[in-house]
Amino acid sequence: MGSVTEENGVKASPETQHPRKAFGWAARDNSGVLSPFSFSRRNNGDDDVTIKILYCGICHSDLHSIKNDWTNTIYPIVPGHEIVGAVTEVGSNVRKFKVGDKVGVGCLVNSCRSCDGCKQGFENYCPRMILTYNSVDADGTMTYGGYSDMVVVNEHFVVRIPDTMPLDKCAPLLCAGITVYSPLKYFGLNEPGKHLGVVGLGGLGHVAVKFAKAFGVKVTVISSSPRKEKEAIERLGADAFMVSSNPEQMQAAMGTMDGIINTVSAVHSLMPLLFLLKTRGKMIMVGAPDKPLELPVFSLIMGGKIVAGSCIGGMQDTQEMLDFAAKHNVTADIELIGMDYVNKAMERLAKADVRYRFVIDIANTLTAA
Amino acid sequence: MGSVTEENGVKASPETQHPRKAFGWAARDNSGVLSPFSFSRRNNGDDDVTIKILYCGICHSDLHSIKNDWTNTIYPIVPGHEIVGAVTEVGSNVRKFKVGDKVGVGCLVNSCRSCDGCKQGFENYCPRMILTYNSVDADGTMTYGGYSDMVVVNEHFVVRIPDTMPLDKCAPLLCAGITVYSPLKYFGLNEPGKHLGVVGLGGLGHVAVKFAKAFGVKVTVISSSPRKEKEAIERLGADAFMVSSNPEQMQAAMGTMDGIINTVSAVHSLMPLLFLLKTRGKMIMVGAPDKPLELPVFSLIMGGKIVAGSCIGGMQDTQEMLDFAAKHNVTADIELIGMDYVNKAMERLAKADVRYRFVIDIANTLTAA
Repeated sequence: MGSVTEENGVKASPETQHPRKAFGWAARDNSGVLSPFSFSRRNNGDDDVTIKILYCGICHSDLHSIKNDWTNTIYPIVPGHEIVGAVTEVGSNVRKFKVGDKVGVGCLVNSCRSCDGCKQGFENYCPRMILTYNSVDADGTMTYGGYSDMVVVNEHFVVRIPDTMPLDKCAPLLCAGITVYSPLKYFGLNEPGKHLGVVGLGGLGHVAVKFAKAFGVKVTVISSSPRKEKEAIERLGADAFMVSSNPEQMQAAMGTMDGIINTVSAVHSLMPLLFLLKTRGKMIMVGAPDKPLELPVFSLIMGGKIVAGSCIGGMQDTQEMLDFAAKHNVTADIELIGMDYVNKAMERLAKADVRYRFVIDIANTLTAA
Repeated sequence: MGSVTEENGVKASPETQHPRKAFGWAARDNSGVLSPFSFSRRNNGDDDVTIKILYCGICHSDLHSIKNDWTNTIYPIVPGHEIVGAVTEVGSNVRKFKVGDKVGVGCLVNSCRSCDGCKQGFENYCPRMILTYNSVDADGTMTYGGYSDMVVVNEHFVVRIPDTMPLDKCAPLLCAGITVYSPLKYFGLNEPGKHLGVVGLGGLGHVAVKFAKAFGVKVTVISSSPRKEKEAIERLGADAFMVSSNPEQMQAAMGTMDGIINTVSAVHSLMPLLFLLKTRGKMIMVGAPDKPLELPVFSLIMGGKIVAGSCIGGMQDTQEMLDFAAKHNVTADIELIGMDYVNKAMERLAKADVRYRFVIDIANTLTAA
């Protein structure tokens, strides 16, 4: 990985390396504590749009990143990749957006545009993709995310927020939403009448339930916690609920599911979940445990089953997801917070104490020190 | 599972439970030693064909089964599910075959014909499928396999051997052949120009190389043994060869493969193999280690990759596979043996000392004691 740009042998600081002043909250070390941070953004290029950030969701990845759980964090880090805002400037080549448009930015802000992945609409698998934060940008500077007042992004990586979408509840769809929508589509689990299991009822799981129901799919939530039954059924509209540690329930559902969206990032046993799948069923992993899981190969073979990984989604799919969500009233269930609550929110997120996503009210609460 | 039929409270013996005398070799206990065995077969029903067995391949499953490695063996067991023979009788409803036809029988001899799997041509995933040996048949008796003089099978589970196929070299295609052909087709890895990795060069691997080359696919063999390079390239026509323990070779091939057929049934590491796959690449497991493998979920997610299991294939695919093999001169490399060599062959198979499949010359060497 590169480093920030150097001039006359002296590393430019985040505050002066670009011409535009920017302000956000950053973590400075692996304590993960966020605090006010002055930095800078590039000028708006010909293909860029400048976005005044209104809302930013708190993704579990933000928590991992500020604490350097994945050992790849470069401090200072400004997290945030569930960004919703308003366009304040457009470059001369920009065709999709005009000033005032409501737009979103998700996990990536650039890719090579020429590899197989990019050409097939899967910029999310481009080996040269640039993430919205903690990534080295094309000019060698670090990218800073959406816990900040504004951002400059190539229009290809900006999506339109449909007029009818509430902007705060929409923010988590930019990461959590596309992460579950994309594999449901890619693996044909979006067909009415199919039966989907959703394992884990958190930020990802709860939107998976909502999208699947909007597709006309039968949804069974599988959770380790019996407490979640009521909310799964009554609040989110799931058709059924099972506790993963209840052998009678698991046995009764054996071989009934066309697919499973597995959002659990703790180490867990795949075997009982594979039993829930029909022949040729597909389990899609969107939660990444930090240790390998045990794969019972015999179970895979006997049922011709698939375990697949899926990582967010491409730009065209992200726009399609938002348009679909607007049409079917799919939004995230959120708790709207002020910027100064973010450290408390991270503590609660670590304990899964949120239903189901924190969203920061950036425009009304982020104020320069 | 049921047991053999009972008459007047007395279990009928294998020798007398059916009206037709049959003869083969059976293992009586988990020593796995095979010896001559007199038993019986049912009369030819309206939908049945009776087959005089000419050749039978020795599959690694046979070895596992006679030694009760999978703890589900019911003794006495007559193994063999790579059966080639000649039709000697057909039932009144039989339309596909006539007396004298050369035919094959693979791993299964019956299924429910009405479940989703059966209706879609995947009888191999029918929960009620009946295996060619060590399975409880529809009448409650045990099925006995192809290390025997004759067999009676419903015509739906019998395939035609194309006229140009050598009967001995064709036998292993009934299990090993369809096991690799079916997933290559199902997962779109049979398209010219694709790049396939074949892990392990044994009974399954060597026919995987041959089928893939016949499809016009680029093939790289990945083996733990550098000794196999010459035979992989020169004898089987693989395009490239890598030793799995050679990090430079593995690194150079990173991200180049559309798919991998993994035939290894020993416990091994999946991570370096997953690295060989392109984005959205697919690793198909056809070898079943007896312990779970470690699944690095993060690697799956980052590349949108798939690990799938696949178990033999359906009847229509099996016929298609044989017709394709005949057209493209795909046969197994075999060592033809007499029936009395079978115990020695099993010892050698346990040490992987065969290139690549033993086939028993049943017609010429199986003689009633």
